[in-house]
Amino acid sequence: MLNREIDHIKFRQKRRNENQGRLLVSCPDKPGIVSVLSTFLYQQGANIIESSQYTSDPENGMFFIRIEFVCEDLVTKSARLEKDFEEIAKIHGMGFRLAYGSERKRSAIYVSRETHCLMELLWEWQSGDLDTDIVVVISNHEEARPMVEALGIPFHYIPANKDIRQQVEAEQIQLMEKYDVDLLILARYMQILTPNFVSRFANRIINIHHSFLPAFIGAGPYERAYDRGVKLIGATSHYVTNDLDEGPIIEQDVVRVDHRDHVADLKKIGSQVERSVLVKAVKWHLEDRIIVQDNKTIVFH
Amino acid sequence: MLNREIDHIKFRQKRRNENQGRLLVSCPDKPGIVSVLSTFLYQQGANIIESSQYTSDPENGMFFIRIEFVCEDLVTKSARLEKDFEEIAKIHGMGFRLAYGSERKRSAIYVSRETHCLMELLWEWQSGDLDTDIVVVISNHEEARPMVEALGIPFHYIPANKDIRQQVEAEQIQLMEKYDVDLLILARYMQILTPNFVSRFANRIINIHHSFLPAFIGAGPYERAYDRGVKLIGATSHYVTNDLDEGPIIEQDVVRVDHRDHVADLKKIGSQVERSVLVKAVKWHLEDRIIVQDNKTIVFH
Amino acid sequence: MLNREIDHIKFRQKRRNENQGRLLVSCPDKPGIVSVLSTFLYQQGANIIESSQYTSDPENGMFFIRIEFVCEDLVTKSARLEKDFEEIAKIHGMGFRLAYGSERKRSAIYVSRETHCLMELLWEWQSGDLDTDIVVVISNHEEARPMVEALGIPFHYIPANKDIRQQVEAEQIQLMEKYDVDLLILARYMQILTPNFVSRFANRIINIHHSFLPAFIGAGPYERAYDRGVKLIGATSHYVTNDLDEGPIIEQDVVRVDHRDHVADLKKIGSQVERSVLVKAVKWHLEDRIIVQDNKTIVFH
Amino acid sequence: MLNREIDHIKFRQKRRNENQGRLLVSCPDKPGIVSVLSTFLYQQGANIIESSQYTSDPENGMFFIRIEFVCEDLVTKSARLEKDFEEIAKIHGMGFRLAYGSERKRSAIYVSRETHCLMELLWEWQSGDLDTDIVVVISNHEEARPMVEALGIPFHYIPANKDIRQQVEAEQIQLMEKYDVDLLILARYMQILTPNFVSRFANRIINIHHSFLPAFIGAGPYERAYDRGVKLIGATSHYVTNDLDEGPIIEQDVVRVDHRDHVADLKKIGSQVERSVLVKAVKWHLEDRIIVQDNKTIVFH
Repeated sequence: MLNREIDHIKFRQKRRNENQGRLLVSCPDKPGIVSVLSTFLYQQGANIIESSQYTSDPENGMFFIRIEFVCEDLVTKSARLEKDFEEIAKIHGMGFRLAYGSERKRSAIYVSRETHCLMELLWEWQSGDLDTDIVVVISNHEEARPMVEALGIPFHYIPANKDIRQQVEAEQIQLMEKYDVDLLILARYMQILTPNFVSRFANRIINIHHSFLPAFIGAGPYERAYDRGVKLIGATSHYVTNDLDEGPIIEQDVVRVDHRDHVADLKKIGSQVERSVLVKAVKWHLEDRIIVQDNKTIVFH
Repeated sequence: MLNREIDHIKFRQKRRNENQGRLLVSCPDKPGIVSVLSTFLYQQGANIIESSQYTSDPENGMFFIRIEFVCEDLVTKSARLEKDFEEIAKIHGMGFRLAYGSERKRSAIYVSRETHCLMELLWEWQSGDLDTDIVVVISNHEEARPMVEALGIPFHYIPANKDIRQQVEAEQIQLMEKYDVDLLILARYMQILTPNFVSRFANRIINIHHSFLPAFIGAGPYERAYDRGVKLIGATSHYVTNDLDEGPIIEQDVVRVDHRDHVADLKKIGSQVERSVLVKAVKWHLEDRIIVQDNKTIVFH
Repeated sequence: MLNREIDHIKFRQKRRNENQGRLLVSCPDKPGIVSVLSTFLYQQGANIIESSQYTSDPENGMFFIRIEFVCEDLVTKSARLEKDFEEIAKIHGMGFRLAYGSERKRSAIYVSRETHCLMELLWEWQSGDLDTDIVVVISNHEEARPMVEALGIPFHYIPANKDIRQQVEAEQIQLMEKYDVDLLILARYMQILTPNFVSRFANRIINIHHSFLPAFIGAGPYERAYDRGVKLIGATSHYVTNDLDEGPIIEQDVVRVDHRDHVADLKKIGSQVERSVLVKAVKWHLEDRIIVQDNKTIVFH
Repeated sequence: MLNREIDHIKFRQKRRNENQGRLLVSCPDKPGIVSVLSTFLYQQGANIIESSQYTSDPENGMFFIRIEFVCEDLVTKSARLEKDFEEIAKIHGMGFRLAYGSERKRSAIYVSRETHCLMELLWEWQSGDLDTDIVVVISNHEEARPMVEALGIPFHYIPANKDIRQQVEAEQIQLMEKYDVDLLILARYMQILTPNFVSRFANRIINIHHSFLPAFIGAGPYERAYDRGVKLIGATSHYVTNDLDEGPIIEQDVVRVDHRDHVADLKKIGSQVERSVLVKAVKWHLEDRIIVQDNKTIVFH
């Protein structure tokens, strides 16, 4: 947490491979696609180091693939590579996305009073395990300021409630633009976002919901879990859409509880699951492992 | 599955301890209850070998305890023991239940077309791990008949659908009485029971629901889990009440699935969880480890 | 377990895809390999439906890939496909294996007195979930005969102990040849095999060891786990080599125990893990998901 | 991590119950013990709120019990309570231990270069979830100093290697006495302690070993796990005895790895398990949930 440490972190995070790239493709399935893609990459001088694919249905299904490759001088070659691949994509009706090791994603975190999810993200980031620049933290409370600023990250306090939502979001959007944010992480932010806001960040807002969705959608999931007498409680990370807690699920996990656990215990126990489930989703997003299709996720991990 | 084996099983199941007893007590919490109970048992010549307790709230809560004890000649002493304890219960406002190792519970199983839960129960019973007499299996299909009759258990085929529910249940109740059933296990029976039927077996009907309740209450849980894109599927065993899938939960568990798993895969994968979650609930019931309180269960395991 | 059921099983097991093939390749890593393989398959009219790869080291490492494909008329084309691929393999220094959906592997099971692992295998096979013909079961005890013969599988009783090992193995090898066995499953066989025997079935004998290897190598693992007071017990499935319990590990799992569990409890609890760990290894082998390299396994699952 | 937060923590940690006590008893099993203990506590005005017991063997075994109780004015009554109980213990041949909510245990942590276990302990402590005073941290490296001193905990740097062990331990023992340490936590300290040192803190030194003991006893467990190709790696917390890594195991857990994980990955993945396994052991010790018997632990949780 001292300067010495921060330097150390920056050093480690720099070692990532500038020659590494990722290609994500989705298209109607047909024979020969892997051949087309792998031959293209070979001709560009790239070596495939990881590849995962999925066909939704053997008959007339969709084909999805994520390829990780290394390529000498990728930084200088990338514009040309992208242009060349567009041709191929056009011919075969492919949707695609190319991501480069040299271009680290920029993340913003929204948080409310509960800081355990924020702390987990900062810890992982500090350990060099979160491949992103955390460029800003925004909160409607002051609780998180000290730990955020201690790490040299800008912290903005924007009070929020449902009566001033428009105005709050206008201010937030301005900050999103100023900090050029790629990914927005809701680390227990607890405020609903408007369709206007959500539409600007389609499949780029990750939320953590403190229940095993679709059980206990909405407010007070631990209270309701307690009332129902469930034997497991869970957490769900998902992309945010306009339907509350109905977006594509990225990851879920549960933990065992029993009759001795009151609501406060459920919250304490559940906070551990929330932390790990959110961090996993964020990591997979940063590593371009997630494809959203029909309100579901394909996760190549 | 041959006679030789069945004999072997009967032999092993007979070795259970006739001197073993269980005392379950619930009452308003106050100092001295453990002293009263343990002193009573000591004076009766019993030795406590296991004891679990729970106080719902340190201030004015309810107290629950399950005591397992051994006592010489318990079979002959039990009537007296029970009568003596009634006095104590009256003084301290206790609800109680005494169960004896010499009195094995008698179980009926209802099953439909899917037999995996039935098979698991029969396997466990055959291995001597289910401390019960399975006295009858009833089904609205013929699929299960061979495996049930091969083990020497009576099998009754009673076609069922919602139009003839009254008549079907009348027939079933007659069989329940004939076979003197203590516990009814719904091993994927898939038919709704009427309040009249349920009220006759309060807290004595255990059902397995093929989802992590309260997610996917009602029909088609695997189809709906697939549509929602969940990353874990689960199963829930619970006591049956008049509210569908709303009874006190006894046990739940989940298993990981991913985007590659279609509905048929979810059913296959889920069937493993259904099996283990149902068997656990049945075992705990047979060992008198469950107390139902306010539509929740206290499970001493 | 009746004839009617067995027919049903045979019917379901026949539905597997005769046009499905698997190609496993290992070679020194270099750019362009995926392109070569996928282009070859495309030219043969095959469609890749699943593909997993692994590079041991980005610098001068080994490359491993498993490709699952479908191809019209694969049964008639396979000889030619294999011959053509040999050319390619020669050029690129590839080791390879081609497996066909039309050629089901033939399995033998060796068992001793404990039959829980055998029963699990038979259950899975009976449910159509084990893609193999179980052609023979051999045992040094008679316990398993009834359940094996009830399913129409030949059962051979060959008494065994270390003094007559040579003679026993000679008899076993004769049966292995007679039944044309591809895979030998040691389902708690408890007898050591000689190097002569093992060498005939390199990477084709799967054993289940009842501990989390390398803890408790050799005899009496549950007794030793009890003495050491471990809090988890486990099971390990591995290919058999000449070093006892030192062969390449395929799968491991553990389950929680505590101070209340005596040796008999550990055996009972552990038997569940043994069953699932053995079945997983057998399934992965049958689906050609395992590559052995340097006494370790690469498992593509 | 700022002053404001530290105050907040202290406030929360003070709320623990001064009227709460724990009684741990072990003695030869016989009827009436629970009656004796519960009647004694009742007569002292105590109310039992939690009780767990274990009998090693129904015939001539040992009896162990842990009772948690509340008692008005326990702080002033405790001396008398202890004296009175000694009488009873003498009569029944009981070993016993009484612990009081008003007397928080004092912990020291030894750490080396790897600080993840230390950080987890500090995090838990900071959240009010570790019921102890962390009175000193000692290390043979300087890495941990900033994070320790930021929390206001004294940090002592004592370089250590096997040639100066005597002298190092002399210095450490002096500090242990100065800080009046009840519990010593080795949070990846990586130095062997001499029998002289260990004997001063029998069953009061908790170590975390980075393997699933008894697999990979000694140095380099992750390297050896990698070489063996295990599919799970684990961690073990145990009391330290004079036999390296052979002390009574308190807790173990494992996590899945696969062929893609190199030694550095195993260390990263394993560090999560080390953290949780160490914290659990420390919590259980602080809550007096552990009884050591015959180089094993009975853990009442």
